Amino acid sequence: MKQISVIGSSTATPESEEYKFAYTLGKLLGEKKIAVICGGRTGIMEAVCKGVKESGGLTIGIMPSYDGSEANEFVDIKINTGMSWNRNPIVVASGELVVAVGGNYGTLSEIAYSFILGKKILGYKTHNINGIEVINSPEDVLRYI
Amino acid sequence: MKQISVIGSSTATPESEEYKFAYTLGKLLGEKKIAVICGGRTGIMEAVCKGVKESGGLTIGIMPSYDGSEANEFVDIKINTGMSWNRNPIVVASGELVVAVGGNYGTLSEIAYSFILGKKILGYKTHNINGIEVINSPEDVLRYI
Amino acid sequence: MKQISVIGSSTATPESEEYKFAYTLGKLLGEKKIAVICGGRTGIMEAVCKGVKESGGLTIGIMPSYDGSEANEFVDIKINTGMSWNRNPIVVASGELVVAVGGNYGTLSEIAYSFILGKKILGYKTHNINGIEVINSPEDVLRYI
Amino acid sequence: MKQISVIGSSTATPESEEYKFAYTLGKLLGEKKIAVICGGRTGIMEAVCKGVKESGGLTIGIMPSYDGSEANEFVDIKINTGMSWNRNPIVVASGELVVAVGGNYGTLSEIAYSFILGKKILGYKTHNINGIEVINSPEDVLRYI
Repeated sequence: MKQISVIGSSTATPESEEYKFAYTLGKLLGEKKIAVICGGRTGIMEAVCKGVKESGGLTIGIMPSYDGSEANEFVDIKINTGMSWNRNPIVVASGELVVAVGGNYGTLSEIAYSFILGKKILGYKTHNINGIEVINSPEDVLRYI
Repeated sequence: MKQISVIGSSTATPESEEYKFAYTLGKLLGEKKIAVICGGRTGIMEAVCKGVKESGGLTIGIMPSYDGSEANEFVDIKINTGMSWNRNPIVVASGELVVAVGGNYGTLSEIAYSFILGKKILGYKTHNINGIEVINSPEDVLRYI
Repeated sequence: MKQISVIGSSTATPESEEYKFAYTLGKLLGEKKIAVICGGRTGIMEAVCKGVKESGGLTIGIMPSYDGSEANEFVDIKINTGMSWNRNPIVVASGELVVAVGGNYGTLSEIAYSFILGKKILGYKTHNINGIEVINSPEDVLRYI
Repeated sequence: MKQISVIGSSTATPESEEYKFAYTLGKLLGEKKIAVICGGRTGIMEAVCKGVKESGGLTIGIMPSYDGSEANEFVDIKINTGMSWNRNPIVVASGELVVAVGGNYGTLSEIAYSFILGKKILGYKTHNINGIEVINSPEDVLRYI
């Protein structure tokens, strides 16, 4: 099963461009039956999971807690790490490709680990780091799969 | 989606009682559409994943490496931790119930974490630790779900 | 610098045999200028750190939190993991030798990791696991150094 | 005991400005009896440890492996994590202050975790990230202690 990691801020609101981008991306990935790996929480993580579920795909949340109770309602499989933010490298290591949508310092750590692990990273309105492939629409992601 | 963790030795061979137990258990869990979480490698992990796939279920491997290349062929979703044996607590934290089948020191560490995290553990031919509920057949697991 | 890991229950009280054992062991290790690695918290961890400090040695606590605020007052160096109980394998991996004093499930997980990593383990009133070398006095530890 | 984390590239050579900076910083921190936490390997990590030892201080390496065999010769205490690059957050969580000297993606991940954890970060010829306090000499670090 193909796996793609989607990373981004936990504080993105449904009105934001980033949330809408992640939601539409989720729908596209769900249609393609690509499993989506994310941090399982709010904001971008919720947006992409919501999209995936609407098109019948599978979502996996790499959770900070031991019980996964902080998962958004669209997470199918909860991987409960108990490691708080230290779970971030696992999120990107588990995707063949990483898509960064907006994001703050948590996302920055995941971008750094993507480079450490030699992953391709696509970015939409995210940190301006050399090596990230800038994309402008969710459909752009499909060209890299 | 219901998630159950199955733990046990990586060296169990297909001829062993433990392998057969895990394989049959996998078939039962797959039929019930219960996702199976395991360490993703050989032995008991392979046995249970094989069974799950034969009955159309979903398997998740919590992998020691960053690239998941050591996964057995029946793992659907690879969670690549890069943490070697330190990934063991994640295996049991991600199941609502833990089933131990045979096992060596890796399994012992997972049994210990099951108790730390307050998980119910069922055991078949595994370590003799007070608090493990001894079971005799794969069907016994279904009574706890 | 020689490093020895001391593991045991966080709930051992100063009146218990186990606490006294760990305290005396700490004094002996401190005298020998052997650095003591432990989980940095209460009970046996506090006892051994207290002993080490009284004889001028060095104590290192592998802390569950990100800020180390739960360290006992005898910890010199706080390694703040933020990983909760998942920090247990680090405690034993960092010692050339592991000494288990009493203990509950956390200790059991550390004993399991000691075996996984091929460490020698000495035990005083601890889990009855094949492979642990039973000792009767703190002085016995010195014969293994 | 005061603890400061020093992070930077494993590939910095002794001829580089960054290596010299880290070495001199190590000497200053050792004189002040401040324990230095680092990743324990080559380059900047070796440089700072070398400096610390020349002025009689204490060095702690947060090692990627389970046996710490990759430690540079100036590491006093080896914390063996077995977690490969996932040990990076532990390096910065264990310092009251973080000093970044040059650096590549590993350092970027540590800078990100410093922000996540609310640590003050000083930087010399490092990533250009908003929020890092730029410094020009090792002595500048002392003003923040």
